[in-house]
Amino acid sequence: MNKPMNIDQFEVGYDIPAAIGMDESEIQTPCLILDLDALERNIKKMGDYAKAHGMRHRVHGKMHKSVDVAKLQEKLGGAVGVCCQKVSEAEVFARGGIKDILVSNQVRDPAKIDRLARLPQLGARTIVCVDDVANIADLSAAAQRHGTELEVFVEIDCGAGRCGVTTTEDVVAIAKAVDAAPNLKFTGIQAYQGAMQHLDTYEARKEKLDAAIAMVEDAYDGLKTAGIDCALVSGGGTGSYYFEAKSGVYNELQCGSYAFMDADYGRILDKDGNRIDQGEWENALFILTSVMSHAKADKAICDAGLKAQSMDSGLPFIFGRDDVEYLKCSDEHGVIGDPEGVLKVNDKLRLVPGHCDPTCNVHDWYVGVRNGKVEALWPVSARGKAY
Amino acid sequence: MNKPMNIDQFEVGYDIPAAIGMDESEIQTPCLILDLDALERNIKKMGDYAKAHGMRHRVHGKMHKSVDVAKLQEKLGGAVGVCCQKVSEAEVFARGGIKDILVSNQVRDPAKIDRLARLPQLGARTIVCVDDVANIADLSAAAQRHGTELEVFVEIDCGAGRCGVTTTEDVVAIAKAVDAAPNLKFTGIQAYQGAMQHLDTYEARKEKLDAAIAMVEDAYDGLKTAGIDCALVSGGGTGSYYFEAKSGVYNELQCGSYAFMDADYGRILDKDGNRIDQGEWENALFILTSVMSHAKADKAICDAGLKAQSMDSGLPFIFGRDDVEYLKCSDEHGVIGDPEGVLKVNDKLRLVPGHCDPTCNVHDWYVGVRNGKVEALWPVSARGKAY
Repeated sequence: MNKPMNIDQFEVGYDIPAAIGMDESEIQTPCLILDLDALERNIKKMGDYAKAHGMRHRVHGKMHKSVDVAKLQEKLGGAVGVCCQKVSEAEVFARGGIKDILVSNQVRDPAKIDRLARLPQLGARTIVCVDDVANIADLSAAAQRHGTELEVFVEIDCGAGRCGVTTTEDVVAIAKAVDAAPNLKFTGIQAYQGAMQHLDTYEARKEKLDAAIAMVEDAYDGLKTAGIDCALVSGGGTGSYYFEAKSGVYNELQCGSYAFMDADYGRILDKDGNRIDQGEWENALFILTSVMSHAKADKAICDAGLKAQSMDSGLPFIFGRDDVEYLKCSDEHGVIGDPEGVLKVNDKLRLVPGHCDPTCNVHDWYVGVRNGKVEALWPVSARGKAY
Repeated sequence: MNKPMNIDQFEVGYDIPAAIGMDESEIQTPCLILDLDALERNIKKMGDYAKAHGMRHRVHGKMHKSVDVAKLQEKLGGAVGVCCQKVSEAEVFARGGIKDILVSNQVRDPAKIDRLARLPQLGARTIVCVDDVANIADLSAAAQRHGTELEVFVEIDCGAGRCGVTTTEDVVAIAKAVDAAPNLKFTGIQAYQGAMQHLDTYEARKEKLDAAIAMVEDAYDGLKTAGIDCALVSGGGTGSYYFEAKSGVYNELQCGSYAFMDADYGRILDKDGNRIDQGEWENALFILTSVMSHAKADKAICDAGLKAQSMDSGLPFIFGRDDVEYLKCSDEHGVIGDPEGVLKVNDKLRLVPGHCDPTCNVHDWYVGVRNGKVEALWPVSARGKAY
């Protein structure tokens, strides 16, 4: 079942942080807010880029975990569908009406494989990543059991050192075995490198991507030599999409964070040495927080701590302010340096989280704001869907 | 409204990670599991300690956010009620039947104050912390509006440098103003220091607590001199409760983490220099995770990453194993060093999270296990209740 959505029964400040039509000042904090204008501009810009470069854009749903945001990306950004990391996430998107879904991850547990094989019954083209021939028989058996077809990407480890194979020989062997297995179809290559996305300079990222592209080209050629059609080559993130788009071998992008942005992505530099949150993309996602104590003259305490965000990629920054600074984070509190004592109790601040993906995953709702009013209330529909 | 709990409609692997009666091997990962035997022993042990030392134990509900765990703490540990950090959390506990609730935090937003003042209508004695006289009129007005009584603790900042007043003069001034305000009652002092709980040595923690106790004693004497009754002095955590219990001035403990334990608490040392998770308390909380890729000979990739835990206090450790090590964490993956290649795909491991509180807050369910079977399935009832 999905979450009940009879929003009229929901109480502001208990079930939901805001009601539609409410003034922004009345939103209950801490919560996630989306600047809808900035979000729409980001989505449209990436969509236009992908289109201009002949790339499919399969937006990464693991970032926002929201059917509503994915549908906006289809509508305004021409997205072809989503990728996500978990079967339970994929189910949320399929039940929400997304028709082309890649689980950009390995699925090995028998119960998860069974659920995966039922996804096409919801009307969604379903692709999954494989990095081990031993996975193929289980996927094939489940797809046969449910009378469905599962498509397969072979994952290449192009630098993350995590999942994925590292030789063209392995890519070809898995692709062959997939095509030989009933109800499975080899469709392409998954080659994404997360950590390189966050390297500061354009040149450092390019060097990593050049190495990835060389691996992918070799695999692509190896498949061709073996007579295997490789329809899709998928990868690319907010820090690298221009490399994949110009690679001549990738034909599908998987960018996610560009839509919301965060502090960690914001500080990487574009080709001209400018932060990518200063022109390339806009901050659209914020944690709205309120000052709830100012018992020390030079420190304001706000209500957004570790339970309102993930600190894995560092502290948030306070949007649009250089007179105050988020200094420290505990479970339910943030300590804000306020050397001039400009903040008062109940003042609201917009925090740009260090890392958008795991921050979104602690919240149940996005509050969409425009012109100072609450315009949208979207559930983080796949929140907690970690299975 | 509370979450719908018609569990028969829930699907394992989508809504819930397990069903009652299931074999532990069938639990869908990643999820939180509780070793019920260890949990019950921890709860009973702290309850016995508090009783033997004449201390009330107001368990910290912000740690587990679970009505079921709080009720077990009342039943087996003689807990007098809970404390929690947010009004929305307090509502969950009050709706769940907890009768004595302290919001161990400041409440300043008008809508939150209004909700707080309605809590006694649910049958819960309601106490809130104050560190600013300017808060009193709003609390009093709301309590009058709803015909309820709110009790007040004055919060002393005994070292955290966060919320709370720092002089006895301020404690007395706030207490007087509270008692002069209609529908408010001064009940005591809140004096808890979070960061000191995690100092490694017993002596380092004692030094910080001695300073806190001196502040509290001074405030207690100041209130007495002013003719104000201070019924409760509340504080103490898993790293310090024996200092408060023997202080002669505290009469209420607020320990939380002792019940579950975590890696960060586990490594602090008791009086004899032993880790507190090696005898004083048992690890009762685990993230159950599965190996989902082993494409590299010396690394297993598991399915519990940043969305299954909070990394603010460091990496988890793998319970009961010294042949494998959790090395790295990304959004949906953990990299496990497996130098001897002992792990296989679908092997399950128990991770002890770095920090229990924010880790529990990303999960929707606790799976209680005993003798290899799922015995309980408890919602993390106040998950995401950050308002």
